[in-house]
Amino acid sequence: MERAAIYHRPESEYASLYTDNDLRLRLRTKRDDIAQVDCIWGDPYSRVIKDGVNQWDYRRTPMHIIAQTEDYDYWGVSVSTPSKRLQYGFELTDTAEEPESVGYGDRGFFPAAPADVSDAAMFHMPYFHDIDRIKVPQWVSETVWYQIFPERFANGDRSNDPEGTLPWASKEHPDRTDFYGGDLQGVIDHLDYLQHLGITGIYFCPIFKAHSNHKYDTIDYLEIDPDFGDKNTFRKLVDAAHERGIKVMIDAVFNHIGDESYQWQDVLTKGKKSRFADWFHVHSFPARYDQTSDFEEAKNITYDTFANTPHMPKLNTANPEVQDYLLTVAKYWIENFDIDAWRLDVANEVDHHFWRKFAEVCHAAKPDFYILGEVWHSSQPWLQGDQFSAVMNYAFTGLIEDGVVKKKITPTQMVSAMNQQEMRYADQTSEVMFNVLDSHDTPRLLTVCHDDADLMRQTLAFTYLQKGSPCVYYGDEVGMDGADDPDCRKCMVWDPEAQDQDMLHFFRKLIALRKKYADVVSQGTVEWRTVDDLTGTVHVVRKFHGVRVHGVFNLGEQAITLKHSHQDETVLSQGVDGKQLAPNGFILYVKK
Amino acid sequence: MERAAIYHRPESEYASLYTDNDLRLRLRTKRDDIAQVDCIWGDPYSRVIKDGVNQWDYRRTPMHIIAQTEDYDYWGVSVSTPSKRLQYGFELTDTAEEPESVGYGDRGFFPAAPADVSDAAMFHMPYFHDIDRIKVPQWVSETVWYQIFPERFANGDRSNDPEGTLPWASKEHPDRTDFYGGDLQGVIDHLDYLQHLGITGIYFCPIFKAHSNHKYDTIDYLEIDPDFGDKNTFRKLVDAAHERGIKVMIDAVFNHIGDESYQWQDVLTKGKKSRFADWFHVHSFPARYDQTSDFEEAKNITYDTFANTPHMPKLNTANPEVQDYLLTVAKYWIENFDIDAWRLDVANEVDHHFWRKFAEVCHAAKPDFYILGEVWHSSQPWLQGDQFSAVMNYAFTGLIEDGVVKKKITPTQMVSAMNQQEMRYADQTSEVMFNVLDSHDTPRLLTVCHDDADLMRQTLAFTYLQKGSPCVYYGDEVGMDGADDPDCRKCMVWDPEAQDQDMLHFFRKLIALRKKYADVVSQGTVEWRTVDDLTGTVHVVRKFHGVRVHGVFNLGEQAITLKHSHQDETVLSQGVDGKQLAPNGFILYVKK
Repeated sequence: MERAAIYHRPESEYASLYTDNDLRLRLRTKRDDIAQVDCIWGDPYSRVIKDGVNQWDYRRTPMHIIAQTEDYDYWGVSVSTPSKRLQYGFELTDTAEEPESVGYGDRGFFPAAPADVSDAAMFHMPYFHDIDRIKVPQWVSETVWYQIFPERFANGDRSNDPEGTLPWASKEHPDRTDFYGGDLQGVIDHLDYLQHLGITGIYFCPIFKAHSNHKYDTIDYLEIDPDFGDKNTFRKLVDAAHERGIKVMIDAVFNHIGDESYQWQDVLTKGKKSRFADWFHVHSFPARYDQTSDFEEAKNITYDTFANTPHMPKLNTANPEVQDYLLTVAKYWIENFDIDAWRLDVANEVDHHFWRKFAEVCHAAKPDFYILGEVWHSSQPWLQGDQFSAVMNYAFTGLIEDGVVKKKITPTQMVSAMNQQEMRYADQTSEVMFNVLDSHDTPRLLTVCHDDADLMRQTLAFTYLQKGSPCVYYGDEVGMDGADDPDCRKCMVWDPEAQDQDMLHFFRKLIALRKKYADVVSQGTVEWRTVDDLTGTVHVVRKFHGVRVHGVFNLGEQAITLKHSHQDETVLSQGVDGKQLAPNGFILYVKK
Repeated sequence: MERAAIYHRPESEYASLYTDNDLRLRLRTKRDDIAQVDCIWGDPYSRVIKDGVNQWDYRRTPMHIIAQTEDYDYWGVSVSTPSKRLQYGFELTDTAEEPESVGYGDRGFFPAAPADVSDAAMFHMPYFHDIDRIKVPQWVSETVWYQIFPERFANGDRSNDPEGTLPWASKEHPDRTDFYGGDLQGVIDHLDYLQHLGITGIYFCPIFKAHSNHKYDTIDYLEIDPDFGDKNTFRKLVDAAHERGIKVMIDAVFNHIGDESYQWQDVLTKGKKSRFADWFHVHSFPARYDQTSDFEEAKNITYDTFANTPHMPKLNTANPEVQDYLLTVAKYWIENFDIDAWRLDVANEVDHHFWRKFAEVCHAAKPDFYILGEVWHSSQPWLQGDQFSAVMNYAFTGLIEDGVVKKKITPTQMVSAMNQQEMRYADQTSEVMFNVLDSHDTPRLLTVCHDDADLMRQTLAFTYLQKGSPCVYYGDEVGMDGADDPDCRKCMVWDPEAQDQDMLHFFRKLIALRKKYADVVSQGTVEWRTVDDLTGTVHVVRKFHGVRVHGVFNLGEQAITLKHSHQDETVLSQGVDGKQLAPNGFILYVKK
C-alpha cells in the first residue's frame, strides 16, 4: 500500500456539505493501489456498550471511485446524520495479493482490526452549519451564456458613436484603438436573435465609463459609458432580457481603476496630500513611470499597477474607504438595475478580505446572485463559499483545447487532467463553473481549430457535455474567426449571407439540448466508458434519475466503428455513417 | 519517483505569508524519495528575451528539508519579491541510481528540461496582501501561562462563599457539585506568588454568572459570578496582573448557554412565541427531553445541545440577533476590562461565519488580541488568519504524553507525528499554539506519570523546548495530583509543608529558561539530531541568531552515555552523573 499517496483534508473539497444534511466525503489514493475503502462515521456523542465497554456507536459505508486520474483514484461517499455532528475515518484494503488493511484518520494511520475508532483517531465535521455551506445559484447550471464585447456587437444608436467611429466591420483586422460604435441599444435590437439562439444569460464586458474601446480602464463605476448609452438604455436592456428569461452579468474591474478616473487624477495633481493617496499603492510621490515603446508597458513605476500598465493603477482594497466605495458600486447595479451576476476582472490579485465583504453585500441584495471570478489557475482559495460562486474555467477548458483541438495531450491525459481539475472543487461548485472555450482575451475557437468547422463543432459538443455553464463568445455561432486580441474583437457579422448558417443551426440545436439535459450533465454521475488513445475514441456517459446521456467522440485520424448505430436515440451527431464515426465526428444519444 | 505522494496547496500552510514580504513555501514528498528540490519563482509579469523568445524571467532557489515524518519529507523555502506578485513551481530530482527529474506545478507534472515554465504550469500567489496574512500576537510566543479553575484556586473573600461551601480541601477527592469558595480576590492575593513563579499569563476557566462550580453553563455573559466577586474585583485583578506583566485570558462559552439563562427560560415558558425561539435550534416545541440516570445525559431532546446535556442548549450563531449579543459580550470585556485574550469553549462546533465576525470585533477592540479555540483535532479551518490565533494543542501534546510518559509510541513515531502536526499550520501559528499537558478536562500530569516526579519533570522540559506557549495547570507546580474530572479540580495546596518544594523550584527554573530562550524555541530552526528507539535517546537542537539550545532526553530504561558532560553549558538537568544520563533524565545546554 502506498501510504504516502493517501490524502484527505477536513472541511475542504474532500469534506463538503452539498445540502444542509448531505456531507460529501472524498479520499484520494494512489491509482489502482486500493481495492476497497469503507467510511466509518457517526455522531461522536453517540455511545454504545459493546463487550462491556462504552464505545463510539459508528456505522460503516463502502466508498466508490468517483474519479480517476493517471496518478490517483478518488473515492467518494455521501453521509447524513440527524444530530448534524460527525466524526469519521477510513478503512482501506489494498490490491496486493495478500491484502493489507489499515485505518486512516485525523492522526494518520491506525490498525484496521481491531479498529482504533477513538475520537482522537477520527476526522471531524463538528457540526453541519448551513451558514458555512457552499451555496451556488441553482439557475446557473441550467444557463447557456453569451458573451458580448459591447463595442463590437451591434450599433443600435448612431447618435452616441464616439468621434472617429469607423464604418462597421470596415477593417478585416481591427486595430487596438479602433471604435465601431457598438452599444447597448444594439443589444436590445438583437434580443430576439439571442432568444432564438437559445441562450439564457448574457455576459457583458465592461459597460462603465472608460477611455478605451474595451472599457477595462474604468473612469466611473457609477456611469454607463456614453458611447454605449445611458442608464435608461441599460435598464431597458435588463428588463427586456429578463422578460425573455435571459440573465444579465456585467463586468467589475475592481483590481485597478483607469488613470483618467478623478481619484487617480487627484493623486497625480496633489501627490501625497490627495485625499485619495491611500486609495492606491504609491511607493513614493510623485507617482510616475518611464514609458517604453509599448503603451501598456512601463518601467520604474512608483505605484502598483495591473501588470506593468501605468494606465491601470491598482486599488488598495484594504482601505475601508475604497471598500465602501466599491461595495456601494456592487450594490448599486443590483438594487437599481436588477443585474443577476458580477464577473470580476483580475479577481485573483484582489484580497480575500475584500471579496468576502463583496459576497456578503451581493447576496444581501439578491440571494441567488452569481459571482464569477477571473482566475486562470487553481481557485480553491476563492471557492469556499464565502467569496465567488465560480471562476472562468480556463484551467478546465484549456485541457479540452489541448486534447480535442490541438492533440497536444492524449485522450487519457485529457480525461485524467479534467478529473483532477474537478476534484479540486466541491460538487456544487463544479456545477456552476463558467466553461469558456474562447473570449475577448483569447483567439476564437474556429481559429484555434484552424478554420475546421467540424473540429469546432466536435469540441463544442464535448464541452457542452461537461459540468459547468457553457458560454458562446459572440459571433462564434455564425462562424467568425479571429486571432488573439485585438483580432478576436471583430465586429459581429449580421449579414445572413456572410454568416455560417450551418454553424448557427448547430449552435441552436446544441444549446437546446444542453438546456434540456442540464440536470443530467450537472448533477449526474459520470462514467468514462472508453478512453482509447490508440483509436482516439472517447465515450462518456452521464446518468441522472434514470436518464443516460451518451457522447462518443472520435479524436483519432481514422474512422471508428460503433457497436450500434443508435439511430433512434441520437439527438445530435456529425460524421456518422451507419456505425462508422469519422474523424472529428461525434454522436450524442439518450437512453431512458 | 513516487509522484502520487507529491503535494502542494496554494494559499494554505504550504504557501503562507510569514511577514508582509516573506512567503514560506512547502512541498511534501515521499520520505527519502527525492534528492533535490528547486523552487522556480518570480513575478509573472517580469519577462525577458531569451533565445529570441519573450519568456518569463524566473529565479531558481534550492529548497531544504524542514521536517520529516515516517512517510514524508517536507521541503521549505522563503521567497520575497518587490512587486508582491508571484508564480512558482518546483523541480524535483529523485534518489534513484539514474535520477529522474520532473517539474511540478498548478496543472501537475511537467518536463524538467527544457522546463515548461509557462504561466499555466505554475502555482500562483497572485499578490501578497498583508490584510490576508495570518497575524499572531507576538507576545504569546514569549508567554508562559497558568491555568486557574477559579472555584479551587484560593478563597480570598469569605463573604461571597455560596451556601453550603465546604472547608477548603476538606475532601481528598472533590465531588462534582462541591463548592469550596475560591474567588477572584483569592487570585489577587496570590499574584505575588504567580509573579515569583514566573508565569506571564493567566488563563481563567469561566468567571461569568452560572449555576455549576465549573461555570460552563453560563447564565449571564455580562456579569461576574457573584461567588467569585464582582466587576470591581475583576477590574482590580486585571490591573494588578498587568502591573506585574501578566496577561489575562478568560473563557467564552458561546457554543451553548446555561438552561437557567433568561433566554432559555423564556423559550421554556413561551415556546415558539418566545422572542428567543430562534436563538436556539429547537426542532419541535415545547422544548423537552427524557432524563436518564446521568444528569448530563438525556434522550429524545427536541433541541440541539452540547453533547447530550439538556442543560446546555446550543445557541444559533447564524441568527444575527445572537451574533450581535455575543459580539457585544466579546467587545465588552475587552473594552471595559482590558482583557488580552479569549479562550473559546467547544469552538469547533460553532460556525466559521460567526468566528470571522468575532475575530474582527476583537482585533478592532485590541489589535494584538489572542484568540484561542478549544479544538482537539486538526484545526486548519480555524487557523487561516481570519478566525483564531491558535488552538488548545492537545493533538500535539498528546503525542508527547504518548511518547515520553506512556511509551505507547516510540521516540521515532513521536517525533514523526509531532512534525506532522507542525506541518499542518503556518509557522507563525505554531509559535503561538497553546501547549497544554493537562487541564480541568484531563487527569493531572503527575497522575498520568504515575506519581513519578522525575518523569513529570522530564516531560515538562521536553514540552518547554517545543514551539508554542506552554501552560501550567494550577497546582502542578507544587506536586498536586488528580485523576479525571472532578478529581483534577482539587483545592490548591497552599501549605508550604504540603507542597512539593523541589517541584516548585524546578518550575521556576524551567519557566525562567523558557522565557529567556523564547525566540530560539519559537522562531529557531529545529534539528532532531538523535532519535534512537533502541536506547530511547532524543537529542533536539534549536538554533536562532547563533544561539543553540540543546536538549538530550533519556526515554529508555538504561542509562545512556553522553559524548560530553557539557558541564559549563548546562542550564537545567536531571539524572546526570558526569557523562551518564539516567532513565527519565535530561540535560538542557546552550551554545553561543
